[in-house]
Amino acid sequence: MDESPKLINIGLFGFGVVGQGVWKNIEKNRTTLEGRLGVRISISRIVVRDLTQKRSVVVPNDILTTDPDLILNDPEIDIVCELIGGTDLALKVTESALKKGKIVVTANKALICEHGEYLFDLAKSNGAQYFYEASVAGGIPIIKTIRESLVGNHFSLIFGILNGTSNYILTRMEREGSSFDSILVDARKLGYVEADEALDIDGIDAAHKVIILTYLAYGFWVKLKDITCEGIRLISQYDIEMACQLGYRIKLLGIISKDLSDESLTVRLHPALIPSTELIADVNEVYNGISVTGDVVGTTLFVGRGAGQDATSSSVISDISDAVSLLGNSNSTIQHASPISYFENQKGLKLRTQGELESRYYVRFDVRDEEGVLAEISNVFAGHHISFSTVNQKELEDNLALIMVTTHLINEASIIKACNEVEGLNVINKKPSFIRIFNPFEFLS
Amino acid sequence: MDESPKLINIGLFGFGVVGQGVWKNIEKNRTTLEGRLGVRISISRIVVRDLTQKRSVVVPNDILTTDPDLILNDPEIDIVCELIGGTDLALKVTESALKKGKIVVTANKALICEHGEYLFDLAKSNGAQYFYEASVAGGIPIIKTIRESLVGNHFSLIFGILNGTSNYILTRMEREGSSFDSILVDARKLGYVEADEALDIDGIDAAHKVIILTYLAYGFWVKLKDITCEGIRLISQYDIEMACQLGYRIKLLGIISKDLSDESLTVRLHPALIPSTELIADVNEVYNGISVTGDVVGTTLFVGRGAGQDATSSSVISDISDAVSLLGNSNSTIQHASPISYFENQKGLKLRTQGELESRYYVRFDVRDEEGVLAEISNVFAGHHISFSTVNQKELEDNLALIMVTTHLINEASIIKACNEVEGLNVINKKPSFIRIFNPFEFLS
Repeated sequence: MDESPKLINIGLFGFGVVGQGVWKNIEKNRTTLEGRLGVRISISRIVVRDLTQKRSVVVPNDILTTDPDLILNDPEIDIVCELIGGTDLALKVTESALKKGKIVVTANKALICEHGEYLFDLAKSNGAQYFYEASVAGGIPIIKTIRESLVGNHFSLIFGILNGTSNYILTRMEREGSSFDSILVDARKLGYVEADEALDIDGIDAAHKVIILTYLAYGFWVKLKDITCEGIRLISQYDIEMACQLGYRIKLLGIISKDLSDESLTVRLHPALIPSTELIADVNEVYNGISVTGDVVGTTLFVGRGAGQDATSSSVISDISDAVSLLGNSNSTIQHASPISYFENQKGLKLRTQGELESRYYVRFDVRDEEGVLAEISNVFAGHHISFSTVNQKELEDNLALIMVTTHLINEASIIKACNEVEGLNVINKKPSFIRIFNPFEFLS
Repeated sequence: MDESPKLINIGLFGFGVVGQGVWKNIEKNRTTLEGRLGVRISISRIVVRDLTQKRSVVVPNDILTTDPDLILNDPEIDIVCELIGGTDLALKVTESALKKGKIVVTANKALICEHGEYLFDLAKSNGAQYFYEASVAGGIPIIKTIRESLVGNHFSLIFGILNGTSNYILTRMEREGSSFDSILVDARKLGYVEADEALDIDGIDAAHKVIILTYLAYGFWVKLKDITCEGIRLISQYDIEMACQLGYRIKLLGIISKDLSDESLTVRLHPALIPSTELIADVNEVYNGISVTGDVVGTTLFVGRGAGQDATSSSVISDISDAVSLLGNSNSTIQHASPISYFENQKGLKLRTQGELESRYYVRFDVRDEEGVLAEISNVFAGHHISFSTVNQKELEDNLALIMVTTHLINEASIIKACNEVEGLNVINKKPSFIRIFNPFEFLS
């Protein structure tokens, strides 16, 4: 009678921040984790680029290798964690592992966005699995929650703060009244900003997560180039102050909303004024928050650390645990609800273009402080059937001024045209900038 | 070649608010749900007490019955939802279904608290399963999150707002300045208060949920009689105002904290002053919010509707879906991580007594407005080595006054003794009441 628990071998690709976190935290909580799962777990092989690199965790030398095949061709390794990042080598090893029917666990949002449709199909056709909890919102279990816990729901609105770095910068701008540029310098020093800064600052990282959530909730793949993706670079201290005065906070939000009238999806990532009474408006610093509204569950909110070694490895370990369950159940005939969302792509679902968005807007005009400026601007906007809800003017030095307005509901095409036209006026100092106003309540009627 | 999806039969016990919600929402989203799960689902039998009772959903007459055996003895029914409530008939049908190896889904917190240890063991020894997502916090998937998503974590602190009715009353007391009694009348009219009012008002319902979370996170069963369980009946408008002035909100909180120094657990349910800067302090009305701190994931917060037909049925449907997955994987040899938490009961873990609690306290003294009152009270407290952090006095009519203090950190045994002693003073009008101050930050060092 053999009662010793089964041994599960795991191979890691990449041993950077997240990889070392996975190793460290499995070691730390090994007894509990193995007790909970009823198996023994071994990270039996780690593929790295450079064997000599110094790392903060100590691993037996003989498990490190530079040869991917030592994981890919090892029939004893059923679970592969791709923690390399990027879309080149990561694609190759993911492809290869899925073709061999292995379970791949990833934190690689860029790879999913670029090749997810192909990779999930590849997993399906090879009886493999592709797990990705760590790809969205760090330690928040949003993938599993939408896929399994809210499985009985249709989703009308999913939105949230999905990039910790941007949220950290906005939080400090609001608290300290400092400029974007000065806080960016600090954030760099703290190691909060990715090497490719555009990922954080121009919203690309958060947009990747929005794309993954859109797939998860609607079975619908959108391309980055087809959605609105704007970062926080243009947010000024004046915008933040005015937002506060008007009862809002400025947050970088990913928003996926479904219009039930025509089965269209709006998918976007941009800074937004959100009412300060919304709970998520108080999700600050490096935290992420995601609100999901389902037709059965109502509105929910999930908050946690959006990045970092430990939070991300918590999600990787969660996926490893699901993989362990699945390996124990490999005689499955029914499709397992847990592993992969093959949610029916809702037929006829279409993506709205940017111009079709209906929203209220905050617009800031940098003007010369002259007579009739407001009248000129108002005339242009009226010509596009845009009426103002609030108007505030602020004197600056050197005979300059800011006019900050909020509009009633209008489509974005009109705002863009009106702003372009205003830019041509003599009294205008630079291109007007607008920020969308997002009131979740308006989407839940 | 038979490619038609497998049919899964479900039997419901009880067809009240939650039962009808489950039926309604499965019907509403049947196509999506069945597509996601890869099976067909049929609620093939519903056991009710009274066949003639009018209900808000229409079901085929031939599936209603008063005979439990038509579910329990039907080998075609693998999933049984116990939605009767109470601990008598519910215990019998749960017992019987588990003995037959069926998967039982429940929303019955009272039953789990009273007989959970027995029922989970029964499930295990019969190869059955006992699912209970709907028993805690309505639509918030806290059970699955702790059990599966945070499986790699040790938990240092779990706390939250677990009773929607109490939170509704406290929210309105704070917003409107009305008394507990007047808002209770409204809450009754709105159908927010359970028939047995003590469940909501005296904290018993929330304490049941705390007990379940303690089992889930620590594998440790505690009895209701062994933990602090206090409702919101004694909260006055003065307390709420003073709390606000001092930068706090008053919430009914369930708190489970682990002291790493001696492996002891503190498990309690009581109103608490919580810093208004905490996100959970803004979880209002009938919403629930649960914060979980794990050693890997850090601090997380989950918010959603804590009760109601739809939110609760979202969780029941989630459990049904897990059951469906499991049925398709019935050749499992390794224990599945998903279904039941057999988390290792952490050896040597012990429960702290009420008197051992270390906390800061807010204490309200109803006194006669006479010279030297504060001195008398201070003397008594000093005698128990309790020093005050803040002191506020408020004049009332009829030569009465309130003295409201907050203390530095002290054990609860001392506070109780000091309050009892003060009660004997001539100048005291009625028994002093204290509210614990809970600052999550102090538990996370």
